[in-house]
Amino acid sequence: MPAALPVAGNRFVIVGGASLVGSATAGELLDHGAAEVVLFDNFAFGSEQAVAHLKDHPRLRLVRGDVMRLPDLLRATEGAAGLLLLAAYMTLSMDRDPWGGLDVNIRGVQNALEAARANRARKVVFASSNAVYGYGPKVAGELVEDTPFHSVGAPPAAILYGASKIIGEQLCRDYHRRHGLDYVVLRYSTVYGERQHYRAANALYIIETYDRVRRGERPQVFGDGSETKHFVYVGDLARANRMAFEAAATDVAVNCSGPAPITTLELVRLVTRLAGAGGHPAPEPEFVGEEPGKVRLTSGGAFRIAHEAAERAIGWRPLVDMEEGLRRLIAWREGKEGRGAG
Amino acid sequence: MPAALPVAGNRFVIVGGASLVGSATAGELLDHGAAEVVLFDNFAFGSEQAVAHLKDHPRLRLVRGDVMRLPDLLRATEGAAGLLLLAAYMTLSMDRDPWGGLDVNIRGVQNALEAARANRARKVVFASSNAVYGYGPKVAGELVEDTPFHSVGAPPAAILYGASKIIGEQLCRDYHRRHGLDYVVLRYSTVYGERQHYRAANALYIIETYDRVRRGERPQVFGDGSETKHFVYVGDLARANRMAFEAAATDVAVNCSGPAPITTLELVRLVTRLAGAGGHPAPEPEFVGEEPGKVRLTSGGAFRIAHEAAERAIGWRPLVDMEEGLRRLIAWREGKEGRGAG
Repeated sequence: MPAALPVAGNRFVIVGGASLVGSATAGELLDHGAAEVVLFDNFAFGSEQAVAHLKDHPRLRLVRGDVMRLPDLLRATEGAAGLLLLAAYMTLSMDRDPWGGLDVNIRGVQNALEAARANRARKVVFASSNAVYGYGPKVAGELVEDTPFHSVGAPPAAILYGASKIIGEQLCRDYHRRHGLDYVVLRYSTVYGERQHYRAANALYIIETYDRVRRGERPQVFGDGSETKHFVYVGDLARANRMAFEAAATDVAVNCSGPAPITTLELVRLVTRLAGAGGHPAPEPEFVGEEPGKVRLTSGGAFRIAHEAAERAIGWRPLVDMEEGLRRLIAWREGKEGRGAG
Repeated sequence: MPAALPVAGNRFVIVGGASLVGSATAGELLDHGAAEVVLFDNFAFGSEQAVAHLKDHPRLRLVRGDVMRLPDLLRATEGAAGLLLLAAYMTLSMDRDPWGGLDVNIRGVQNALEAARANRARKVVFASSNAVYGYGPKVAGELVEDTPFHSVGAPPAAILYGASKIIGEQLCRDYHRRHGLDYVVLRYSTVYGERQHYRAANALYIIETYDRVRRGERPQVFGDGSETKHFVYVGDLARANRMAFEAAATDVAVNCSGPAPITTLELVRLVTRLAGAGGHPAPEPEFVGEEPGKVRLTSGGAFRIAHEAAERAIGWRPLVDMEEGLRRLIAWREGKEGRGAG
């Protein structure tokens, strides 16, 4: 199994590592005996705070660098066996800055792959997205790995983001063909969990609902609440990243989604109930229209992002359901706020 | 009709102008009274030869510049009312140089749109491609403007090319939304005609068949010849470009294809017959496998690229069928070779 890369004893670089998924994956790799984990980040979106809990770990190293500067990557990846490529603009930041977003999501990936090739890394795991299936009413039913990219009616930034991820995947495939670089593409669905940020359009449903309920306001539902979302818990993704390195699989792209999809109304009710666990009676959600100027990603159809191919390719399936994952997210937020206030 | 831009009396810049489509469109715009046509090209793919017949035209100006250098574009587009964006790597060149290809097809488009915005140009026509529907056996039936992008099984360079055109279209849409820049996207099918080059994967069927027959060799068909191709004659496209400027249409993307699709076997037989018109009996085609290492784009399904939306949006439909278009292409080749030999 030449494409299997054991975690124990090997060095890993997480490009875009000072992040939700980066910090969780660093912990996962360190727990499984990685010789060293380098978190490479320019701290444009990443934060010291996201990795504060790991900072003093003896086998963790934080490197400030930029994916747009190949020399930064070449130095950071010397001696690395595996690279996890997370650095990316998502839809909201792509909307604010399409120049920077296309740079990072395309040239940044080329630079990271070139660094992996030049330093003879053994395997790359590329964080892609279910955005490669697009958005809108035609995205319905089971989303499987050969579902095409639907873009009609989606906001420009969402299409730029999805297409940039399609390109990132193909760049991996191209490096595999030309240079034999092994890789696994994981198409993440919307991530949530401890150290949640405010940058992912779909995860905003969770964190904004939580914030409103904590302020004593009624939670808001955009539209009629029947829209499907399919999230994945960050700890499940960290495990998927590790297993993608360890598996014999190469030259493959698979979905990583949580146990089941949820409607936005169910989600808002669930967050409301969990956030109010301290005592308040759960307030009823308020149904509101779209906020002007805000990019929200909607899909008219009910869909499920199939993750069965991931089980076949890397032996992974999601273990944490939304209720458990949200409990952990909320416990983390309350712990943080408790510490902040104390 | 604020988005209608009359050709007569106005200045136009054709970015990537020293080309098959660029030279034909320059002629079309000059014939319709354009005050000036600037052909902007870095001559990486474009050639002096492609525009030699126009070079001495009093209202034509050739500007050497690069789409990767915004200052070049800012200077060339001063006072321009309309920009036609042709500069692009196609699949074969994307395969040779994905770094340069993604630069030109994405950053180059951003630079050109930025120059149009900064110089207050009135309208942009962006040359997209039917590659935005992808390739492979799932691309079948009528390809209409909301057909999604299928990529499974296509070579990386073909997907990079298609996705880069999807991004180019969205960049136009984004500039329209943010800055009110009017635009029409024309999704060209494979172009052929006078001044045909060897850079388009699908047009190679025409030119290679012609070359073989002229050398007295049997023409070759890859596979069983049942594969569909849908070409468009360059003169029809030049007219489409002009009509896209003149039409009231804006913020729209439409297909531009020829009157009807053709199978590769029909195409090879037609070119063989026309190329042999000088006297030889038409040789039978030879059925061969794929050449290793050569990117050929195949579609298992029979398809037609619908052009009815273009008629509704800009009043255009194709007028030149394959037999007539190929006659013109061959007459041009024979004239050129005659002159070359004389």
